[in-house]
Amino acid sequence: MNIAILTIGDEICIGQIINTNASFGQIINTNASWLGHACTEIGAQVLRHSTIGDSTEALLKELKELSQEADCIIMSGGLGPTHDDKTKETLVTYFNDELLLDETTLNNLKARARLRGLPLNQRNMDQALLPSQCTILANPRGTAPGMLFEKDDVIYVSLPGVPSELKGIMNEHVLPLLRSRIERESGKKPFFHTILTKGIPESALADLIGEPEYFLRENESLAFLPSYQGVRLRIGIMHQDKSEAEMRLKEIQQLLCDKVGTYVFGFGNDSLLSVTTGLLKQQGKTISVVESCTSGLLGAAFTQESGSSSYFMGGFLTYSNALKNQLVGVSNSSLDQYGAVSKEVAEEMAKGGRTVLNTDFCISITGIAGPDGGSEEKPVGTVWIAIADAKQVIAKRFSFGGDRAINRERSVAQAIGMLYDVLIHND
Amino acid sequence: MNIAILTIGDEICIGQIINTNASFGQIINTNASWLGHACTEIGAQVLRHSTIGDSTEALLKELKELSQEADCIIMSGGLGPTHDDKTKETLVTYFNDELLLDETTLNNLKARARLRGLPLNQRNMDQALLPSQCTILANPRGTAPGMLFEKDDVIYVSLPGVPSELKGIMNEHVLPLLRSRIERESGKKPFFHTILTKGIPESALADLIGEPEYFLRENESLAFLPSYQGVRLRIGIMHQDKSEAEMRLKEIQQLLCDKVGTYVFGFGNDSLLSVTTGLLKQQGKTISVVESCTSGLLGAAFTQESGSSSYFMGGFLTYSNALKNQLVGVSNSSLDQYGAVSKEVAEEMAKGGRTVLNTDFCISITGIAGPDGGSEEKPVGTVWIAIADAKQVIAKRFSFGGDRAINRERSVAQAIGMLYDVLIHND
Repeated sequence: MNIAILTIGDEICIGQIINTNASFGQIINTNASWLGHACTEIGAQVLRHSTIGDSTEALLKELKELSQEADCIIMSGGLGPTHDDKTKETLVTYFNDELLLDETTLNNLKARARLRGLPLNQRNMDQALLPSQCTILANPRGTAPGMLFEKDDVIYVSLPGVPSELKGIMNEHVLPLLRSRIERESGKKPFFHTILTKGIPESALADLIGEPEYFLRENESLAFLPSYQGVRLRIGIMHQDKSEAEMRLKEIQQLLCDKVGTYVFGFGNDSLLSVTTGLLKQQGKTISVVESCTSGLLGAAFTQESGSSSYFMGGFLTYSNALKNQLVGVSNSSLDQYGAVSKEVAEEMAKGGRTVLNTDFCISITGIAGPDGGSEEKPVGTVWIAIADAKQVIAKRFSFGGDRAINRERSVAQAIGMLYDVLIHND
Repeated sequence: MNIAILTIGDEICIGQIINTNASFGQIINTNASWLGHACTEIGAQVLRHSTIGDSTEALLKELKELSQEADCIIMSGGLGPTHDDKTKETLVTYFNDELLLDETTLNNLKARARLRGLPLNQRNMDQALLPSQCTILANPRGTAPGMLFEKDDVIYVSLPGVPSELKGIMNEHVLPLLRSRIERESGKKPFFHTILTKGIPESALADLIGEPEYFLRENESLAFLPSYQGVRLRIGIMHQDKSEAEMRLKEIQQLLCDKVGTYVFGFGNDSLLSVTTGLLKQQGKTISVVESCTSGLLGAAFTQESGSSSYFMGGFLTYSNALKNQLVGVSNSSLDQYGAVSKEVAEEMAKGGRTVLNTDFCISITGIAGPDGGSEEKPVGTVWIAIADAKQVIAKRFSFGGDRAINRERSVAQAIGMLYDVLIHND
């Protein structure tokens, strides 16, 4: 099952989505990535992603081309109620179809409007006009339902661009269908194992591992995926039999661990964060934070998953020097003598925070995120991170780069990495 | 100048990048978006983005196809030192070229290794082997330089996938070249104005505006770009003359503001955050936060830009109930009687935080982010946000959905929107 993913929208094509959704540095259009991941997980092969603008001609051309190589084309976007949303009309043209009123969709629209106490305008009512040849995929989370067409052995799926709606329709309708089709076929499926490493750069890791052709067979692959949290090694294998594939994956995993085991901190869907919070839970320890330049990003990371209240208690955002003194008792003499970005202040922040908040560990971060505020001695990107526990306080200096957002991200990753190192050596 | 953007890498195609870089909910592969935006800004037209896996065959096929319709193909990724990076070798095949040692690149590699006290291994040295026909684009931020080829009136640019390196090479080499080529051509360029609205859904906004064909001419367009912070209206115009285009854009902007002006809070590169922090600076006010379910995301948002220390002082992460009481004095009776997610507790958090932190405003957020912890009376997605100033405290209840990450994002967006509403009505 070869899948092509097609994202539709001027705003995505010309990158306006960066300004729109990422203005708090958080949410970006992740539909294509999510779809790619979901399809790979069920054993389909993602041939490609494409993004095109809101243009009828471009969409018609793209569908024609993609249908030559793909067994299934998954489209997202262009189903909204305004004039620049053209996907539905274009599909009507492509399939030489016509629009019919769908009562179920209309009733859903009416119920939604009633619930919110809003009048149902014509624009919204028009969303119940749907192509006669399509299977309608219910969308309880929004107004535009998904659509599924089949023609000349190609499946065409059209989904709304709102991520929660897209994911809902995929999980409830599309993925189950694709999974059963794939199972009916007798071909090979891809299987993956992932090994997570930290503390070693990609090229040094590759040197330790050696050339993959010496230990991989045909239909087996090894990918190096670097990130701020370390390099992930993804072993891939194409096989018709799941248990045989799993056995071989374990064999290769063992072989790699023999070579680079000291750098391995997790496997599969683990992340540095999940492994670290897992250790906190396992050891029954609590944690708090005192953040300056990251101003909440570390606290937000620790509470990303539900259930974090068992280990994360809270913390202080001591962005101003006055609050560093007032809230966690950093001495004014340290602030004057060494500056807010210093070993001494980082240590006092962690120790002070731990005392006030009464947790097993407290992590502090203080740094010059940039782009302003650097000096010769402490250039932009200089960050001190400290961890205090009952016995000691450890502080480390990092030198990141000139980008504010990246410096804040890397600070969070390194803080979690430092906590991991402490926890893994804990008795 | 028609541009095609081509992102290369198995990990992007199969969506693994979600797990890799987004594990703290922050950084995702934004190269394609950034490139699309940068190329649009200089007046080029982005035909499409494509993403393909690390496959020599797929890349050769893609380059052949894209060169039929694009004047310039910008590739990113696949230039790393490991065996799964295949872009350079594939380009050598595509252009029927050969690799030569580039001394400048080798010296850069040696200098970088010396600076870090690392040995220079063969894998890294190989990055100085470059195709003889390409123009080498220096990459002072990393090991793999960019490459530029020209063949049959098509420009091919190959860039490393690391975002900071890619942006550096684009800004220093590629964008200036493309800009001068575009200026040499006599054709029309695209110009944009953007109007930012909040507090009105997309379809109601479209109703107020009416059908665009009644006020837009040929070569003019209007796009609706919804996000958690509101709907942005992007007016586009293709024109040969910049000042005439700007005049006409202002005319259309005025016409739209006449129709929907009450919902407009900004223009162009403004964001709800930048407009709100602009008001804080203009009014000389300071702010602090007391966060529970968002646990730092609001503080992180307020400090996203350099210079935020003029208005943002700090805050409390009161994730546990005990800390809500200890740090900002929320009464245990309110916690018992109304629960942590209630009007009363939100108000006490904001008032208490403001008193302790001594700021003009203090914003609190307390909610059930999910997926666990909901009840019939307070389902997952129930969030209370309060703002305290010297005169009063305002609290508002929100009902978001079932997704933890989205609920936290929307809480931050709504908190900033509430602060904007208070500041805009301030004397």
